[in-house]
Amino acid sequence: MGHGTNRVEDMASPNNGTTAPATANARETIVEIHSVCLPPKKTAFQKLKKRFGDVFFPDDPLERFRNQTWRNRVILGLQSLFPIFTWGSQYDLKLLRSDVVSGLTIASLAIPQGISYAKLANLPPIVGLYSSFVPPLIYSVLGSSKHLAVGPVSIASLVMGSMLSESVSPTQDSILYLKLAFTSTFFAGLFQASLGLLRLGFVIDFLSKATLIGFTAGAAVIVSLQQLKGLLGIVHFTGKMQFIPVMSSVFSHRSEWSWETILMGLGFLAILLTTRHISMRKPKLFWISAASPLASVAISTLLVFLIRNKTHAISFIGHLPKGLNPPSSNMLYFSGTHLALAIKTGIITGILSLTEGIAVGRTFASLKNYQVNGNKEMMAIGFMNMAGSCTSCYVTTGSFSRSAVNYNAGAKTAVSNIVMASAVLVTLLFLMPLFYYTPNLILAAIILTAVIGLIDYQAAYKLWKVDKFDFFTCMCSFFGVLLVSVPLGLAIAVGVSVLKVLLHVTRPNTVEFGNIQGTQIYQSLKRYREASRIPGFLILAVESPIYFANSTYLQERILRWTREEEARIKENNGSTLKCIILDMTAVSSIDTCGIEAVFELRRRLEKQSLQLVLVNPVGSVMEKLHKSKIIESLGLSGLYLTVGEAVADLSSTWKAHGQP
Amino acid sequence: MGHGTNRVEDMASPNNGTTAPATANARETIVEIHSVCLPPKKTAFQKLKKRFGDVFFPDDPLERFRNQTWRNRVILGLQSLFPIFTWGSQYDLKLLRSDVVSGLTIASLAIPQGISYAKLANLPPIVGLYSSFVPPLIYSVLGSSKHLAVGPVSIASLVMGSMLSESVSPTQDSILYLKLAFTSTFFAGLFQASLGLLRLGFVIDFLSKATLIGFTAGAAVIVSLQQLKGLLGIVHFTGKMQFIPVMSSVFSHRSEWSWETILMGLGFLAILLTTRHISMRKPKLFWISAASPLASVAISTLLVFLIRNKTHAISFIGHLPKGLNPPSSNMLYFSGTHLALAIKTGIITGILSLTEGIAVGRTFASLKNYQVNGNKEMMAIGFMNMAGSCTSCYVTTGSFSRSAVNYNAGAKTAVSNIVMASAVLVTLLFLMPLFYYTPNLILAAIILTAVIGLIDYQAAYKLWKVDKFDFFTCMCSFFGVLLVSVPLGLAIAVGVSVLKVLLHVTRPNTVEFGNIQGTQIYQSLKRYREASRIPGFLILAVESPIYFANSTYLQERILRWTREEEARIKENNGSTLKCIILDMTAVSSIDTCGIEAVFELRRRLEKQSLQLVLVNPVGSVMEKLHKSKIIESLGLSGLYLTVGEAVADLSSTWKAHGQP
Repeated sequence: MGHGTNRVEDMASPNNGTTAPATANARETIVEIHSVCLPPKKTAFQKLKKRFGDVFFPDDPLERFRNQTWRNRVILGLQSLFPIFTWGSQYDLKLLRSDVVSGLTIASLAIPQGISYAKLANLPPIVGLYSSFVPPLIYSVLGSSKHLAVGPVSIASLVMGSMLSESVSPTQDSILYLKLAFTSTFFAGLFQASLGLLRLGFVIDFLSKATLIGFTAGAAVIVSLQQLKGLLGIVHFTGKMQFIPVMSSVFSHRSEWSWETILMGLGFLAILLTTRHISMRKPKLFWISAASPLASVAISTLLVFLIRNKTHAISFIGHLPKGLNPPSSNMLYFSGTHLALAIKTGIITGILSLTEGIAVGRTFASLKNYQVNGNKEMMAIGFMNMAGSCTSCYVTTGSFSRSAVNYNAGAKTAVSNIVMASAVLVTLLFLMPLFYYTPNLILAAIILTAVIGLIDYQAAYKLWKVDKFDFFTCMCSFFGVLLVSVPLGLAIAVGVSVLKVLLHVTRPNTVEFGNIQGTQIYQSLKRYREASRIPGFLILAVESPIYFANSTYLQERILRWTREEEARIKENNGSTLKCIILDMTAVSSIDTCGIEAVFELRRRLEKQSLQLVLVNPVGSVMEKLHKSKIIESLGLSGLYLTVGEAVADLSSTWKAHGQP
Repeated sequence: MGHGTNRVEDMASPNNGTTAPATANARETIVEIHSVCLPPKKTAFQKLKKRFGDVFFPDDPLERFRNQTWRNRVILGLQSLFPIFTWGSQYDLKLLRSDVVSGLTIASLAIPQGISYAKLANLPPIVGLYSSFVPPLIYSVLGSSKHLAVGPVSIASLVMGSMLSESVSPTQDSILYLKLAFTSTFFAGLFQASLGLLRLGFVIDFLSKATLIGFTAGAAVIVSLQQLKGLLGIVHFTGKMQFIPVMSSVFSHRSEWSWETILMGLGFLAILLTTRHISMRKPKLFWISAASPLASVAISTLLVFLIRNKTHAISFIGHLPKGLNPPSSNMLYFSGTHLALAIKTGIITGILSLTEGIAVGRTFASLKNYQVNGNKEMMAIGFMNMAGSCTSCYVTTGSFSRSAVNYNAGAKTAVSNIVMASAVLVTLLFLMPLFYYTPNLILAAIILTAVIGLIDYQAAYKLWKVDKFDFFTCMCSFFGVLLVSVPLGLAIAVGVSVLKVLLHVTRPNTVEFGNIQGTQIYQSLKRYREASRIPGFLILAVESPIYFANSTYLQERILRWTREEEARIKENNGSTLKCIILDMTAVSSIDTCGIEAVFELRRRLEKQSLQLVLVNPVGSVMEKLHKSKIIESLGLSGLYLTVGEAVADLSSTWKAHGQP
């Protein structure tokens, strides 16, 4: 930069002897000092309103309604309640063709997966098909994602199954179990819709990605282990979910292993994994992995039908009722001993399925560059589950694997969900008898293929490389889920994440700044070799809000910085330390404890004849400093807009007073 | 500033037409661009070590031991374990005289207060005196504060009394109650000493000052209400602590009110409050309030003795055993149904008494400009309570009121505690029979006088003025304690404080910056009227770490800023927006979610042909950005050290490419 700044710079290093012309009147002629402003005045109500808006309406949802006629407002209102009105009017045959193709493709996945996932939740297989019929229809009207394929998903199914079966046996008490499942689904929907309505969507943000990677992988391992029952043909399997009891159950029932089942299961598993691998390599061949589950079901069913008289080693589904979803609102359960369990299960499956659905929706929206509104999606998914709980469905959401197929198959709108639901409808009405001989092993193989992709070891490795603490969180949730239990594992991981935030606040970073020669830039001495100390000054930047949780620490830490600096000066025979400059740029907030700490720090430094100067407090901090009258006690000379101005002004004042 | 910066500044506003000389080669000749450095490389172990040191050893306790001979190290080690070695060698007669005066003064307070506070904890009055004997002796050897007067305190006594008497009746089950009290004291000490040993002292920082103001005031009101029993002479008083049951108990037992008690009680209360008022106005007259409790005890005892045959309306203490503290280690209770209660009570009274003791120690240390080491104090208080629990003492700590008297009476070292303990010893050995006729009403009056000062309405008003949220926290703990229960009120207040930290992280502030004409300073447009936008740029500062909890929000918020800016430009026919500059100075930390959000934001802005540029990421953020390879994708042109350099460089690049 030009020599203008250099002149200021010269002043800032009063010991280099080159500033002879800059004498006592230097202050008026050269240094231009900007005062620190208060933010514009606001009443407490205005501030509360702004804060409220920031917390609950960060997307400013009423923005579009401004400057519109009433007619337009009504239309916009309808469109925002029912996104189908947004795209419905422009819907044409070309879009329909794409949607039919993709809808049929995901149906071929949804039917075998629906049956499989229902078994994962310890529910009758038919409930999985019911759940692939009503919820997609509702979502297509309410949802704002164009690519989300709605239906049962593995994680939520597993969590519901594991939580409910801890208290109620799905085999001995099947009616109560079914009731609890529908009730949990109702509460999941209620919880999801409330989060959306109350605009508390940020709650799901507390499930960090690191937590989810670990949780999903842990759940996938649990799900995979459960499939050993089907793949090995074990009859007496443990009802527990954790790693150790499942493995011991597998090996203690070695006599039940059936070689026919194992052979056939591994064969189909190999086929399914190969087709999945091909489609992952070449996304254009998505239909191979999309068609293979249904094809495997068909072939395996035929095989079992052909050998039905020769062996009974291979277990199959058996009779499934024909017909549409029966109403289940009479099965909802609003009182009694298990209500708390149903609510707890509902909230946990609700939050998990919400997280999955919204993450999937956002992923594909971002690929096609459209917006998915989090709060609206929550309401859509919530209402869909509440409606589902009255029509014999269990928890559903947008599935990642099926949505990916939907996207690759060229889905253009939510109509693909309607097409899928129609295909499920036809199945429910006419094709149910065909599943009589479908072997359980094929369901296990389908689940295994679906969940194996959820173990994202590459993402975990990346976490390890970039952020060790995130990796630790990830491992906590992985092992917590695998070894303890699903809800506890989740709680541990969320706790660790929150602890990280608190720890960061409790022990914030302070950095010593120096001047980069020839500029007005002040930067970390450790990072920038070209930065150098300015004699007489200790410049510290605090990198955190100052709160009750760290005010004592910061005070002690800054005093320690001062001690260390004085020791350093003594060693090098430098010029005496006279002023501590506290760069407050990164102090995004302060509370009353923080203010008191600054005040106390100033008092203690004064006793050591050291001046404390604050630089560039942000608006809210400035306001609080002002209100607490600390500004008045600091005086104008204790507050600067930039470090450079503070250094220049203070040095010239010292010079004017004849100090070295 | 000089014209050097102005030249850069001219470039930064490419539309003002005055920069004709600065053509395509402007970049090489004028703008000096500093590259952003990575922090010096460290291994994961080194980083962990530093972080560990920051969290657990912020005071660098081994600093003094460096560069010392072994002999000196041993001496320093002894001194740091037993601070008595630090001042013991320089102790002389002059100091002793001061300490004797102050020690006797606090003894005259400690004896009546000890008896009173023990009654508050539903313990026999003699336990209060025991607790004023052993703990002060231990503290005088281990403690690092010179002014702390150790003994039972009102808050901890109340909390112990209320928590234990919820499960065990102190009258019907007095032995078990006593056992539980000693056991709680043991666990309180264990907890305190462990916090100190494990250097987890920051745990007490989570009790923010706002929480403590509310909690203390709430507890003081509860304590005061309990004194109505003694002051009104009620015999059948409720065992509950909350406001409503106590008031209803007071008025339902109106028949038990005794006018003699009320008259005498109010009389002494008036005397005590007046003397307190005098001493508060004139700190030199501290001895008036210090002597008045013992004087009142003496006078009231004499009065009751004289009228002992005329009325039985005034209840008095009765027989107290003579002699030293009996050992009580055999009464500690390490198994059985009430163990959990004892541990819980221990932890809560432990943390409360620790907070009080350390705050008091720090207050007086700061007045005399010496250091009180938090972790060492915790160990001192912890060991003192553990030893106390084996010698018939209950929870003790540094009392604020007595320490203030100690300070004003001229105490110089912890010897004043030894003098006080000696006075208590004399009392225990010889003077106990004198307390036979001491009326309970005087104890109530003494407690009331002591706790009334704890209701700090001025501090609460200041909270309201400076920080509404802190005031809210304060009210939560006040009403929580008053209406719900002591531990729950405390838990609510801590929860609210932590929620505030989380809320701040979840919804961080973003500010639009502009340039202050003629400088390189970029500041908030809203705060600084002289700041103005730079055509083509949107400069945003993020005032928070970027975490999983806010990454989605920030991404959406920045996109909304962009939309709003584009709308504004359209309205004013300004020049097109080309670049978003993100000032990361205040982003003190980032995690993997945050990095992904920055990446995703960049991708989405690019689709709208907008460039995203990062400015001045702090060391740890820079490191993570580097590791995640995002830097490479941003390229060198996407990272600047200051906003000014970014603006100057980008404008000159655009000019070189012939863009407007």
